[in-house]
Amino acid sequence: MKLKDLGEFNFINRISKSIRPSGRVVKGIGDDAAVLKYTKDKYLLFTTDMIIEGKHFYKSAKAESVGKKALSCNISDIAAMGGTPKFAVISVGLPGSLDLRYADGLYKGIRKAADSFKVDLVGGDTVSSGKIIINIALIGEVEKKNLTLRSGAKENDAIFITGNIGGSIKLKHLNFTPRVKEARFLVNNFKINSMIDVSDGLLADLGHILEESNKGAIICEKTIPVSRNALGFDSAVRDGEDFELVFTLPLPQAGRLEKAWPFATRLSRIGRVINRRKGFFIVSKDGKSKKISPAGFTHF
Amino acid sequence: MKLKDLGEFNFINRISKSIRPSGRVVKGIGDDAAVLKYTKDKYLLFTTDMIIEGKHFYKSAKAESVGKKALSCNISDIAAMGGTPKFAVISVGLPGSLDLRYADGLYKGIRKAADSFKVDLVGGDTVSSGKIIINIALIGEVEKKNLTLRSGAKENDAIFITGNIGGSIKLKHLNFTPRVKEARFLVNNFKINSMIDVSDGLLADLGHILEESNKGAIICEKTIPVSRNALGFDSAVRDGEDFELVFTLPLPQAGRLEKAWPFATRLSRIGRVINRRKGFFIVSKDGKSKKISPAGFTHF
Repeated sequence: MKLKDLGEFNFINRISKSIRPSGRVVKGIGDDAAVLKYTKDKYLLFTTDMIIEGKHFYKSAKAESVGKKALSCNISDIAAMGGTPKFAVISVGLPGSLDLRYADGLYKGIRKAADSFKVDLVGGDTVSSGKIIINIALIGEVEKKNLTLRSGAKENDAIFITGNIGGSIKLKHLNFTPRVKEARFLVNNFKINSMIDVSDGLLADLGHILEESNKGAIICEKTIPVSRNALGFDSAVRDGEDFELVFTLPLPQAGRLEKAWPFATRLSRIGRVINRRKGFFIVSKDGKSKKISPAGFTHF
Repeated sequence: MKLKDLGEFNFINRISKSIRPSGRVVKGIGDDAAVLKYTKDKYLLFTTDMIIEGKHFYKSAKAESVGKKALSCNISDIAAMGGTPKFAVISVGLPGSLDLRYADGLYKGIRKAADSFKVDLVGGDTVSSGKIIINIALIGEVEKKNLTLRSGAKENDAIFITGNIGGSIKLKHLNFTPRVKEARFLVNNFKINSMIDVSDGLLADLGHILEESNKGAIICEKTIPVSRNALGFDSAVRDGEDFELVFTLPLPQAGRLEKAWPFATRLSRIGRVINRRKGFFIVSKDGKSKKISPAGFTHF
């Protein structure tokens, strides 16, 4: 049997099941970042992302944008837990024949993202490789009271999303701003029951929240903020790498949040959490409701 | 200018210089692992290593050994700081056409190494890739009093090495035991002034200690523990991936250490730290002393 016959998510599930975490692990595989015991008031967060030339970007892309992306997807994972990014280590695989300016550009992009989010770049590994590979691992912190998992959605929670989705392939997947300040505002001022960043696509990622929380949802097509760059509604809700935040909070707090939202970044209320037995539905513009199978982008 | 014209160490130096660590970083780039502020009595350690098919291993190698190596080199880095490994995240790039048994074997090897050293596997990333790539990032801990850097060697320190060196290409580079228990014994019972693990080759890695400590050294060929698998003395002291520990401690403690050493792993006293102005020398078996230029394996 080949890896692609099993599929990415099944392979990850298979691995996860064989791992027995110790008591130091609050949450292991299966959220945006791992949650680890740390101090009396805080948890440590730990995440990693690998990007490869020809898969996640092409060499025609600006080196600085590629470097920025490599760190920013990790920062987005920490944001989705309600936390603050702190320390990163960077592994790069580079061809010896690579133009030095391109290599410098990659690090310039990483450094710029690190400076913007006060991340310390503290180490790494450099190896030779046919294709450009960047792997970053990032440590963050979160106050225990602010930790936000995928698994906390409650029935009747309002579902929100930041920014616009879709069309990230055109530009945004290389040039997005991780929603750290938005996430920190949310966890500091509201009871955010669940949160995730949109990396596999809105339907897939909201699907992860529902599965981990054992809930259903109903969302409304007309409220979903589709980017002008999107190819259409269907691709907008299924394509990945938007790096926006999807979160749920108790319905009574929804109005206050909409009034208090202080950012230029758009905020949209797109639906409501319901009982699992009712399923996962979308109400289309013509008022009909359709059942959703939340498949998103998979690597194999 | 191409990356290979600059060379790996020059490229890393160039990157390091452009990074300004914050006050939370005790030691950033330039040791076996980064040292970060943590609790009143402990530091956090943070390291990462990337291995790539065709560079660090061939696909003919047993998958389980490859997986074991991927985690073990990181554990060895934590050992070289005097610390204990704790939490790992694993990124893998795999071809979709890969036999599932091979993919399972990689994870089995990682899991076995993790179990042996009580490391929690807490997350990761899975992407599709033409070649097999494994990147692991590892968090460890060390008591402040036990932290051992490359930069602490003192004049007249005795220089020791664990195990045998050379010939790692034949088998050992895929099948070594990180020297965690040896390192913990050392830092708990002796004043270890400096320590490093042998990844670039004995001369290169002892050279790193001397450079960071601003010292010279004299070592003795006849005391250097060369493996039966080594191609010869010169390659044994220059080839990398032995993953033994080289360390220095005050001369008055050397005899007590040799008596107290409780492990089956060999322990060899190979020389002495001297003034930097005197340089870095080796006394060959015929009694002549030769100046050393400590070049080891470089990737570009």
